[in-house]
Amino acid sequence: MKKISGADYAPKSEIPCVEPGIKYNIAAVGIDHGHIFGMIEGLTSAGATLKYIVDVNDVNSNHAKRLKDSYPEAEIITESEIVFNDPEINLVCTSAINSERSKIAISAMENDKDIFSDKPAITSLKAFEEIVKTIKKTGHKFYVYYGELIHNESALYAQEQIRLGRIGKVIQVIGTGPHREGPIGSRADWFYDHDQFGGILTDIGSHQVAQYLAFSNANTATIKYSHVGNYAHQQHPGFEDFGEFSIIGDNGSSGYFRVDWFTPTGLSSWSDGRIFILGTEGTIELRKYCDIAIDEHGENNVYIATKDGEEYINVTAKVGFDYFKKIIEDSMDKSLNILDQANILEPTKIALLAQNNAELISWKNENK
Amino acid sequence: MKKISGADYAPKSEIPCVEPGIKYNIAAVGIDHGHIFGMIEGLTSAGATLKYIVDVNDVNSNHAKRLKDSYPEAEIITESEIVFNDPEINLVCTSAINSERSKIAISAMENDKDIFSDKPAITSLKAFEEIVKTIKKTGHKFYVYYGELIHNESALYAQEQIRLGRIGKVIQVIGTGPHREGPIGSRADWFYDHDQFGGILTDIGSHQVAQYLAFSNANTATIKYSHVGNYAHQQHPGFEDFGEFSIIGDNGSSGYFRVDWFTPTGLSSWSDGRIFILGTEGTIELRKYCDIAIDEHGENNVYIATKDGEEYINVTAKVGFDYFKKIIEDSMDKSLNILDQANILEPTKIALLAQNNAELISWKNENK
Repeated sequence: MKKISGADYAPKSEIPCVEPGIKYNIAAVGIDHGHIFGMIEGLTSAGATLKYIVDVNDVNSNHAKRLKDSYPEAEIITESEIVFNDPEINLVCTSAINSERSKIAISAMENDKDIFSDKPAITSLKAFEEIVKTIKKTGHKFYVYYGELIHNESALYAQEQIRLGRIGKVIQVIGTGPHREGPIGSRADWFYDHDQFGGILTDIGSHQVAQYLAFSNANTATIKYSHVGNYAHQQHPGFEDFGEFSIIGDNGSSGYFRVDWFTPTGLSSWSDGRIFILGTEGTIELRKYCDIAIDEHGENNVYIATKDGEEYINVTAKVGFDYFKKIIEDSMDKSLNILDQANILEPTKIALLAQNNAELISWKNENK
Repeated sequence: MKKISGADYAPKSEIPCVEPGIKYNIAAVGIDHGHIFGMIEGLTSAGATLKYIVDVNDVNSNHAKRLKDSYPEAEIITESEIVFNDPEINLVCTSAINSERSKIAISAMENDKDIFSDKPAITSLKAFEEIVKTIKKTGHKFYVYYGELIHNESALYAQEQIRLGRIGKVIQVIGTGPHREGPIGSRADWFYDHDQFGGILTDIGSHQVAQYLAFSNANTATIKYSHVGNYAHQQHPGFEDFGEFSIIGDNGSSGYFRVDWFTPTGLSSWSDGRIFILGTEGTIELRKYCDIAIDEHGENNVYIATKDGEEYINVTAKVGFDYFKKIIEDSMDKSLNILDQANILEPTKIALLAQNNAELISWKNENK
């Protein structure tokens, strides 16, 4: 068996793309979800400057303080209007409560700023149409933090291996996205409120669609079946702890995805998230956040089988994250059109449709 | 991390269940598929005696000779009527061409014998109804070799762990059953003929349904979506190289399964078949036939995550195969009713329904 070592893959450098003397200013508006840290880290590593941290409720919140510790030059404020009225702000970032994000996005674009939202950026089909209208009307850019794709080196590595033809033509992608709920009381109330989190497929399902489109090279997909359930959280009737969906891409490839909130307490990671890509000439498996029962492997484990054999490679710190740089470049010079707005919106739309059409399932025939 | 060693699990002995002085005679009628070797091996290890090897075409076929080498006391013949007319034969075993198996099963039962058929035992819903009628009419037993469940120690181990409550209540089972087609010319013509092999879900999909019912404890399941395709075998228009289906069990649990003929040439095994069982309190993953990029692990790899941590255990030669013993005991004393005919028929029926309702998908929009 061939084991590729890290030396075989050239990591991309994280050289900032903002030229000296020029500033690309960003602001964090709505920091309810911890994803804001990864979003700001990615952008500032690529050269952006964090100017404002907006917490409308509390300038002393843990998230605000943690951001301030990392970016002491940023100012903590409670008024998002200050951001919207500041002509120096290029991009607004938000990880507000899911259902609030699209409103912030619309305000940002209408105030001449681009927007980078955590997923789910949009929690209803009505809001989706409003976002599309605002993008068209304002000409501003809308970016989504599909972190399990754009901020995951194993996913980016897989995309590149597919592009290089390592496994032939992609027939199918299976993805599992288990998540850890955490100890009782560790989640805010909105986490369990369906209107606010938007449904499990809208939320963590959108990561999976983003990965499907990236790996399969499909432009869009039709939902064949989707299902959501609340199997073990009866104390939170609005919650969904399980979801799954089958899709067929416009290129004829297939996708199946499962998401859930059942990461076992004893798992070393928050998720044993996997991706299985079936090609005509080979397969790629990603063990994204851990390699079960092999602690020393850590994150970003890639297993490839081709006509030449089986390979294992860990790609942590070998790929880098150039999506943040692309956002800044795209946002600074719109004529480049590096990032296709359709590609950014499509995973969100498909996830929303999967959610809206999902069959609700529960335990049956308990007395078997 | 806790690593369970083999010493923690007591292997079951393979003591023959046929008492001294008594004979339980079996015959192999139709030996086209190599599964016949595993079927006969399992039964003879449990105490059965192979009396006849029937190859209607050729007494010198490779399969006939290989069986004769292992069981020199067996007689190679070309007339199945000799078997059907021999009152000493208790059980007929068949791995004939898929579409021929149900006819052999009906003849066996009508001639006062029980029947053990390789999967797929039945390739059409019409034949399914005939089998059910014959079972009712004759009172004879119909057994199916769902080898990926009954002849796989990791699958049997998982079933036992679930029964012991290791992972709580089973919410979902995902299974992948890739298969190796083998070199060009290595498969008989019937392998590619849809009427003869019966469709990919009917065939290798039935293994997956058998596993789903065993792990989920559902009695039956409703098909939510199924899909078959011929993505890379255009030279064999009747062939299907890909299939998938989503099901919901009568207990509300969920199942998703993919089968295909795309095992990469360089993979160390014929299949990187996996099972993922999601429970309310933990997960079980089976890497059934290899552990990619870890040659030394071999077959029957079980990975469990619970509240207590992550575990790896290899269960090869630690579980044994008591299904063959159960077949013989059930067949010898029908009053025991150890094996439920409904449980045996249900995976076949669900697989047939998935096949009959499958959407046929192919590549589209090639010029993207």
